[in-house]
Amino acid sequence: MIQPRTLKGFRDHLPAQALARERVLDVARRVYRSYGFAPIDTPALEYLEVLTGKGSEETDKQLYRFTDHGGREVGMRFDLTVPFARFAAQHVNELGLPFKRYHMATVWRGENTQRGRYREFMQCDFDTIGTTSPVADLEMVLVVHDLLAAIGVERFTIRVNNRRVLGGVLGRLGLAAQATGVLRSLDKLGKASPEAVAAELAAQGVAESAAATLLEMAALSGPAEQVLGRLAELVGEEGPGAAGVAALRGIIAGAAAAGVPAGRVVIDPGIARGLDYYTGIVLESFLDDLPSLGSICSGGRYDDLAGLYTKQPLPGVGASLGIDRLLAGLEELGQGGGPETPAQVFLAHFDAAHLADYLRIAAALRRAGLAVEFFPEPKKLGQQLKLASKRGIPAALVIGGDEFAAGTAQLKNMAAETATTVAWHGDEQILLAAVRALLATRG
Amino acid sequence: MIQPRTLKGFRDHLPAQALARERVLDVARRVYRSYGFAPIDTPALEYLEVLTGKGSEETDKQLYRFTDHGGREVGMRFDLTVPFARFAAQHVNELGLPFKRYHMATVWRGENTQRGRYREFMQCDFDTIGTTSPVADLEMVLVVHDLLAAIGVERFTIRVNNRRVLGGVLGRLGLAAQATGVLRSLDKLGKASPEAVAAELAAQGVAESAAATLLEMAALSGPAEQVLGRLAELVGEEGPGAAGVAALRGIIAGAAAAGVPAGRVVIDPGIARGLDYYTGIVLESFLDDLPSLGSICSGGRYDDLAGLYTKQPLPGVGASLGIDRLLAGLEELGQGGGPETPAQVFLAHFDAAHLADYLRIAAALRRAGLAVEFFPEPKKLGQQLKLASKRGIPAALVIGGDEFAAGTAQLKNMAAETATTVAWHGDEQILLAAVRALLATRG
Repeated sequence: MIQPRTLKGFRDHLPAQALARERVLDVARRVYRSYGFAPIDTPALEYLEVLTGKGSEETDKQLYRFTDHGGREVGMRFDLTVPFARFAAQHVNELGLPFKRYHMATVWRGENTQRGRYREFMQCDFDTIGTTSPVADLEMVLVVHDLLAAIGVERFTIRVNNRRVLGGVLGRLGLAAQATGVLRSLDKLGKASPEAVAAELAAQGVAESAAATLLEMAALSGPAEQVLGRLAELVGEEGPGAAGVAALRGIIAGAAAAGVPAGRVVIDPGIARGLDYYTGIVLESFLDDLPSLGSICSGGRYDDLAGLYTKQPLPGVGASLGIDRLLAGLEELGQGGGPETPAQVFLAHFDAAHLADYLRIAAALRRAGLAVEFFPEPKKLGQQLKLASKRGIPAALVIGGDEFAAGTAQLKNMAAETATTVAWHGDEQILLAAVRALLATRG
Repeated sequence: MIQPRTLKGFRDHLPAQALARERVLDVARRVYRSYGFAPIDTPALEYLEVLTGKGSEETDKQLYRFTDHGGREVGMRFDLTVPFARFAAQHVNELGLPFKRYHMATVWRGENTQRGRYREFMQCDFDTIGTTSPVADLEMVLVVHDLLAAIGVERFTIRVNNRRVLGGVLGRLGLAAQATGVLRSLDKLGKASPEAVAAELAAQGVAESAAATLLEMAALSGPAEQVLGRLAELVGEEGPGAAGVAALRGIIAGAAAAGVPAGRVVIDPGIARGLDYYTGIVLESFLDDLPSLGSICSGGRYDDLAGLYTKQPLPGVGASLGIDRLLAGLEELGQGGGPETPAQVFLAHFDAAHLADYLRIAAALRRAGLAVEFFPEPKKLGQQLKLASKRGIPAALVIGGDEFAAGTAQLKNMAAETATTVAWHGDEQILLAAVRALLATRG
């Protein structure tokens, strides 16, 4: 016998988890589409040269790689951005520009599982390429907003910054050449204390007064107008810093015009995003009731997506929903969980002689759009209902020989543990209405 | 520069293809759920010992396998049945029985691509385990029917047989010991001529009269009652053969009770399914207008799913939709194709000074459930509309400064190349109604 087990860092999704994930994927698909983003898919396996040297030294090390049957060196994708870069370079002429795509798919990283990370997880990316328009930046913010609202997250904040503002401030402080190191240090704020970050900056040779300005800037909060006013002072009246402040002003105004409730999008000059390739807007988003979870949806603008594969410059902007992190957060907040089955109605198999009647009833309810579980065997009723209850099916119909003769049915509210008798006299539409009324009363 | 290319046997899905696939997956999900099947997911990678020796010598050879970072021998799943067997054995106590699952996921096989096959493709399986009830068999037939009907396939036939009928006939002909070889030969009918199959049977030592009976049986067609009547004569009055005929009778009666149109499900004693593990009902389904495509959804009943992983017997029944084959078939029939974007409305970016107005309009249409593509830059109108037309967006709204002043908008029917003027006076609901009316008129 072979021991049934999964690899370390990999996991099965049982129905309750899989249903929760399908629900979020479905919402993401709907929101992405509502902005005209189109789905694409790319292979799980790519030529190794497409994948290596694109992320960091760490992602190279974590890559699942091997030699295939044809002697080719191949690797499993570790994110959806690198395959999209290859895809865009390969198909740009067919696609036309600007091009907006979403991609929801599994990626693999041989990470150290000690940190509670998985080696297989899902990413849900959306990007607009082929335009430098600030409208595309704004649309990213709007999509993230609509997405989190549609998923049903009640309290969340989208934190926005612009790399050009950071660049402008660094320039005025004479730190332009050290930008990468300084941004990496600032990115630690939140996890590390301001004092620790100040010490790191000092170690990089940043003067005390400059470090103080950077920490003041990163800590700015409050109404957008106030934050933007102080940033305008810090960056001066001209140059990329001033353009960055103007771009942020446009994001706030655009979000308001599109009907985003005030306070959902805030300017946070402390958002740096550790990745070197961002050049404009950067965005992170947090559950207000669980900020320690980290950002659940992050992104930004980059200058060129596919420079390694094509000479055609492909600037873009996009973000990625961390669906596994979000689901873990919702569960921690008590908003996770749910039934183990999509079935809404359990139809008990009570009297084998009435099989044709059961089939007719199930078919009628299904035609009306309900999900019906019909128990396959005429087992003891108690056993049948126990399974229906364990799985969280909200309604159950019990119709035995006597009920068929009398034209009645027992309709059970499984959560409330109550039952009513429905006089349906062979008319499935009456049963349907009764089931619908029960389902409509659920909290 | 790195050449942007995909591995041999692998392919990208561009938006038109990806949208078509998402549409079918969505229908499959809805139909599977309507019968109470619940989603699960398993890892793409499994311990090698879980995967090898489960399919055939061929699948073992085609397996993508390697040694991971921790020195473990691993493989990529080549189907969804073997991982389900491992999953069921591992989690049966949590799941409860009977258990109904669907699983829609990618699998990999290092096949010879000469035959036009891909090395990465998707499977959409559903199975009921933990019951031997004929109702579960019937439900498989009903799900396949509802699935193909809901996908919009107009003309299809579900062909059903029962291995016990085949067994019964072989028993009466004294060929029980040679069943596997004989079934494998019979399975070639359709691809090979009856004469070629007869020659193969003769080579196995099957007497000429017995071969004639087998070929007569396999060719039986016509009304179910007629086919069942002849089968009843062939199998005799008792034993597994007679039970198989009775089971087929139950399938025909059950399908009728559930409202399946007559003629959609037929008894076809020629369906053998080459796989050894089927023990009861077997099913294949075909597009009537493209039978040469082969079966697009196939399945059957098996005695024990997970015997290699657990001592608990897990009998089951299920089928698998070949989504890539189906999509290829629909395309061949001219029912494929479709737009390159989910967007229903294109909103031209005509006058940058009215950005806030465009954002308000787009938001209002999206809130009403429409998918709106707003062009990110105020480029030349002709260029914008050309892209909208190429992508197949059905409606376009053009509102410039003059129109805003006059309270009007130009609404274009992109396919018909007509335009109307809508007097909306700043009320987005009027625009919405006009767009909806246009979308409703599409063929």
